Amino acid sequence: MPPVTGNAVVFTQGGPTAVINATWVGIVQGLLPAPEITGILGAINGIDGILKWNMVDLKAQAPSTLEAIARTPASQLRSTRHKPKPEDCRAMLGVMAKNGIRYAFGIGGNDTSESLDLINDAARAQGHDMRCFHVAKTVDNDLMENDHCPGYGSAARFVANAFRGVDLDNQCFGGLYVGVCMGRHAGWLTASAALGRQDADGGPHLIYLPERTFDLARYRDDVARVYRRLGRCVVAVSEGIEDASHRPVMEVLSKGGLEADSHGNVQLSGNSALAEALVEQAKDHLEKTGVVSKCRARGDTFGYVQRSFPDQSPVDREEALSLGRFAASQAQSGNIDGSCAIIRVSDNPYRADYKLVPLKSVAGKTRRMPPEFIAPSKNDVTEAFMTYGRPLIGALDPMGVLDMSKKVAKPL
Amino acid sequence: MPPVTGNAVVFTQGGPTAVINATWVGIVQGLLPAPEITGILGAINGIDGILKWNMVDLKAQAPSTLEAIARTPASQLRSTRHKPKPEDCRAMLGVMAKNGIRYAFGIGGNDTSESLDLINDAARAQGHDMRCFHVAKTVDNDLMENDHCPGYGSAARFVANAFRGVDLDNQCFGGLYVGVCMGRHAGWLTASAALGRQDADGGPHLIYLPERTFDLARYRDDVARVYRRLGRCVVAVSEGIEDASHRPVMEVLSKGGLEADSHGNVQLSGNSALAEALVEQAKDHLEKTGVVSKCRARGDTFGYVQRSFPDQSPVDREEALSLGRFAASQAQSGNIDGSCAIIRVSDNPYRADYKLVPLKSVAGKTRRMPPEFIAPSKNDVTEAFMTYGRPLIGALDPMGVLDMSKKVAKPL
Repeated sequence: MPPVTGNAVVFTQGGPTAVINATWVGIVQGLLPAPEITGILGAINGIDGILKWNMVDLKAQAPSTLEAIARTPASQLRSTRHKPKPEDCRAMLGVMAKNGIRYAFGIGGNDTSESLDLINDAARAQGHDMRCFHVAKTVDNDLMENDHCPGYGSAARFVANAFRGVDLDNQCFGGLYVGVCMGRHAGWLTASAALGRQDADGGPHLIYLPERTFDLARYRDDVARVYRRLGRCVVAVSEGIEDASHRPVMEVLSKGGLEADSHGNVQLSGNSALAEALVEQAKDHLEKTGVVSKCRARGDTFGYVQRSFPDQSPVDREEALSLGRFAASQAQSGNIDGSCAIIRVSDNPYRADYKLVPLKSVAGKTRRMPPEFIAPSKNDVTEAFMTYGRPLIGALDPMGVLDMSKKVAKPL
Repeated sequence: MPPVTGNAVVFTQGGPTAVINATWVGIVQGLLPAPEITGILGAINGIDGILKWNMVDLKAQAPSTLEAIARTPASQLRSTRHKPKPEDCRAMLGVMAKNGIRYAFGIGGNDTSESLDLINDAARAQGHDMRCFHVAKTVDNDLMENDHCPGYGSAARFVANAFRGVDLDNQCFGGLYVGVCMGRHAGWLTASAALGRQDADGGPHLIYLPERTFDLARYRDDVARVYRRLGRCVVAVSEGIEDASHRPVMEVLSKGGLEADSHGNVQLSGNSALAEALVEQAKDHLEKTGVVSKCRARGDTFGYVQRSFPDQSPVDREEALSLGRFAASQAQSGNIDGSCAIIRVSDNPYRADYKLVPLKSVAGKTRRMPPEFIAPSKNDVTEAFMTYGRPLIGALDPMGVLDMSKKVAKPL
């Protein structure tokens, strides 16, 4: 089937990552040479930019500007948390049909895939020839059909580096440290803390993921066991861990009310109640059981810097660009639509590829960590996860370790 | 006076920085060629390693190990918060005299300078020939006699990058963001948030420092003014801001008890009460005064990652190494002692030099930000501060900005 002539629109939805810009720049770079693409529009603030017609001409951007933007975290097209209702999708289709838009590229999570599916269905029902593409992005790494998602590698790189730093810091004094990472339903980002480990005694010594029920008593015992051995303990925890009755531990331990967004999601990020409660619980246990008389105990909630720190994983950036270009090439290949996903070809040497999957296969689902990536002890990841994660974050700077075996004998 | 033959001991005190290792490696590299230095001992856990004789042979470390350690954050010699009493200083002198230690290098803040001064006085009183050197370090950048302190540049680099990231993130959705930085009595680290600003409308839009009284009503008005103009507001705040009666705002707004360390310092870092209270106060004001009907408001407390993130400022690392070597060369130049400080020779091109100042001139004092670095509005830094700070953090990656002037006209 010959390509249809028309405009293309690109928009980004949901929480930023370090490489969303790289993805849409990849799409633009892929569409620029195509004669059938008459205009390339960037909708500002996601679907709101389509509904309210707030559009920037992406063909008019200097190539050097696009290249610089691809290296910039978050989204220069802005974003929105507005999840469109079916009537919004029909309204968007109306705007697109009226303005000769035949290609739509939505960069986002599973909600965005769902929205594009709705638009696509409506277009088909109205006989409007439309190609709708979802391009994966999320630091949560929880989209179905993807080996991993653009944005994850860079966020994981930050988390690995942050834990490497706080572990070296904790080593200076000893004590307890709890760091809380983003991850409501899936532990991918928290698990990446392990990728910064220096050696067998390096932290994080314990990792708690939302895929496994969190048991407060077991946690306290885990910490005490590590502390007895090393005189210190560094813990990585997902914000979304739940107790046996599936209540978020943060909610169980929190005093105040928690704010919900328009998707009905409770705000967990930016709330430090979990870190503080877990620090308190473990410190109390360590002191009461005599593991240490007065425990130096600290907790941090890493917050928004995880997803936007200006230090892209080189692999993540290249894949985000390539996935965008893949989406553009798919759009030129016929009357198709779908979700653009990353698959893994091999671990060693690491090699990825891209494929188009049905929009419905990604929509509204969450990909949690598989059992083979989680240690049976429920407080760590496995070597299989390390093999999975290492290539995604890029090389970390090597660290030097003092040779402590060169002791100077005690004087008489 | 000819150099005295004997052992040297190196130790690190207090909170880690990203370049403490670089400083002690610089000392070791400077001492290695000196024939009069018979042994170079690294005390583990600061003065506790001297008092309890826990020493590592630093001459026995491979040169490549030392080079790698200089690139590693925190301290491979570990640290302690133990501030020695006068009797501890005498006990340390006793251990040193018994073990032929004639040179002591303490890397730390003003407390460490004070301790070395006590040891030095005791040595002089006992007629023991001892050379005591304090080498500056602190992410707080608050030591007298120093233009800036090793450790500050790297921590400031992290803070500048973190704010650059969260500002781009905040731009995606709009809303309020408050980030709380380390800095109990001095605002240097919080001020460095400004060094990541992208342009005139880039965040942080407001910066509150402990050098100026924090007024809650004025803060709310400041936020409302920025929000009305930009539809968003990013705020950087020092953990140590105080109200008009000199009470820490964190303490005023906090519900729970706050833990004090053995120096009598209340634990402010790792406590997120300030960020949460400031977010709540401003959100409430913005909504009640109708600036925005429902404000997306988030707060983060950056925590320990500020001082240990594995991304040294190249300038900071080089200066830390050089300051260590300077201390070693001073030790070989005669029977002197003192504190090794960084001075600035010129801003443009940036050039620094090193000098020895009396231990007493650094001991027990805090260098706050001078008035010329703080805007009269009390909610920002000045261009003079930017000139001061920029060379210290190293180059930040350039970011790309979408040309929003290339709008696509509204369709009919």
